[in-house]
Amino acid sequence: MSKIVIALGGNALGNTPEEQLQLVTETAKSIVDLVEAGNDVVIAHGNGPQVGMINLGMSTAAEAGAIKAAMPFPECGAMSQGYIGYHLQNSIQNELAARKINKSAVTVVTQVLVDENDPAFKHPTKPIGAFYTKEQADKIVAEKGYTMVEDAGRGYRQVVPSPKPVDVVEKDAVQSLIDAGQIVITVGGGGIPVIKKDGKLYGVPSVIDKDFASAKLAELVHADMLIILTAVDRVAINFGKPNQQLLESMNLEEAQKYIDEGHFAPGSMLPKVQAAMGFAATGGKAIIASLENAGKACKGESGTVIVK
Amino acid sequence: MSKIVIALGGNALGNTPEEQLQLVTETAKSIVDLVEAGNDVVIAHGNGPQVGMINLGMSTAAEAGAIKAAMPFPECGAMSQGYIGYHLQNSIQNELAARKINKSAVTVVTQVLVDENDPAFKHPTKPIGAFYTKEQADKIVAEKGYTMVEDAGRGYRQVVPSPKPVDVVEKDAVQSLIDAGQIVITVGGGGIPVIKKDGKLYGVPSVIDKDFASAKLAELVHADMLIILTAVDRVAINFGKPNQQLLESMNLEEAQKYIDEGHFAPGSMLPKVQAAMGFAATGGKAIIASLENAGKACKGESGTVIVK
Repeated sequence: MSKIVIALGGNALGNTPEEQLQLVTETAKSIVDLVEAGNDVVIAHGNGPQVGMINLGMSTAAEAGAIKAAMPFPECGAMSQGYIGYHLQNSIQNELAARKINKSAVTVVTQVLVDENDPAFKHPTKPIGAFYTKEQADKIVAEKGYTMVEDAGRGYRQVVPSPKPVDVVEKDAVQSLIDAGQIVITVGGGGIPVIKKDGKLYGVPSVIDKDFASAKLAELVHADMLIILTAVDRVAINFGKPNQQLLESMNLEEAQKYIDEGHFAPGSMLPKVQAAMGFAATGGKAIIASLENAGKACKGESGTVIVK
Repeated sequence: MSKIVIALGGNALGNTPEEQLQLVTETAKSIVDLVEAGNDVVIAHGNGPQVGMINLGMSTAAEAGAIKAAMPFPECGAMSQGYIGYHLQNSIQNELAARKINKSAVTVVTQVLVDENDPAFKHPTKPIGAFYTKEQADKIVAEKGYTMVEDAGRGYRQVVPSPKPVDVVEKDAVQSLIDAGQIVITVGGGGIPVIKKDGKLYGVPSVIDKDFASAKLAELVHADMLIILTAVDRVAINFGKPNQQLLESMNLEEAQKYIDEGHFAPGSMLPKVQAAMGFAATGGKAIIASLENAGKACKGESGTVIVK
């Protein structure tokens, strides 16, 4: 039996509430497989598309005069935690009930501390929200002042700062719930980013990478294993080339060498590998795997293991 | 030392994120007073204005084509729990830190079970969202098909079904967090309403009255005291008339007599008195009081006590 932190991608949650609920119902099966195998499971998730949708939706409605004010970015992150967390806990509870497993799942609204001097605040890099054509993107830049960039050939997206996680504010609550046997959903969207000033916490407009937040969480709750889920079964070097090679494992030195050689795409596989390295450096076992093969990955039959 | 469930009104949270954060910062002081006095505190809150704002905002943006889909009502409730819960836990944590009290606050995304045959589903009565003029209301009815009614002379508002709470799905998680010394924020907006079909939980478009949900929660976590906060210090009979009389206490028989005589306004004081009676009937002590005098109310120096 292991204590496992799983990091789910926000891009794997669909583009509408109906899509999300359907996808999460499938996700719940893989998660409950891990629970049924006797593991303590903690779930972190991304929120890129969702927080962008909420932010744009509320600001559009405010500008149209339908509602009184737009929603600041940290509040949008909090809303996305409620929205995604509800679907996850509901679907996992339903799957547990179907298998007659006497456990339950619960979402904790979670703030994550960042450093107000993090250089990321000066350089927005994290893509969020929907994909737009160049024309649509130019219109949004003109109307709302967002920073929009071309994202990996898929279209234009808003980018916001992505500071590194320093601490999980609600870590004690998360630990208490794990100890009580709950399946905990936390650091949604990487957590609501907060800075500390004069001993008080204030939300800041940014999005913390959910893989880095998951690695920090895994470290803080002393997890045995961090599983970062992605669309492929294993990390590859020379990805998409004739000499592509799938990796069963890599140590920190090898991983750094591959990074230096430019094998992993920024904003895609690179942060996953870096987050996995961060947890591996603390002595934990990190695995990058596909959702479908998460169970196999735990047993060493799939995924790429990153160890010290 | 008592275990206290506090029910905060959604109408006392302001109309914009900035207003809400400011008001909640003040609210946190009264709540931390109760914590500092040695009590275990659980906080429930309303979400009428907020869930209406989120629902209308997202549907306006979807109709304008800015986002792909509107947000169903249960998901809007979940989003409001994240939004309000984040402000509450942040403000309470900041107030605790300022007073050097080594405790923390945490929000649990919470589903509340309702009966799919609850007669409320056939008769929408719960006002939510902003207040509109008759002209604006007629336009919303025509465009969105909402049911709009005149609300206590303050303008027109959307109304949705308000079924009674049957169970709090995440009650075990809430209890574990109370046991661990956390200040728990739960059943936000009365909880996300879910019905059970073939053993599975499904969200349903409605809003559970937060006072009834708070009373159910207080019963389930075996609270000593339920404090329902309102704008006035004490419940009155002959409210606003020359013979108005403030009540220091009433038993269940007296409360029922006052209800039968029509002393309490539906949608305002009536559900608070009924919810208080529900908890008192289980043997608990229920108090209706103002936020400012919540601490005094605990000591019997303010508020109206409802007992068996």
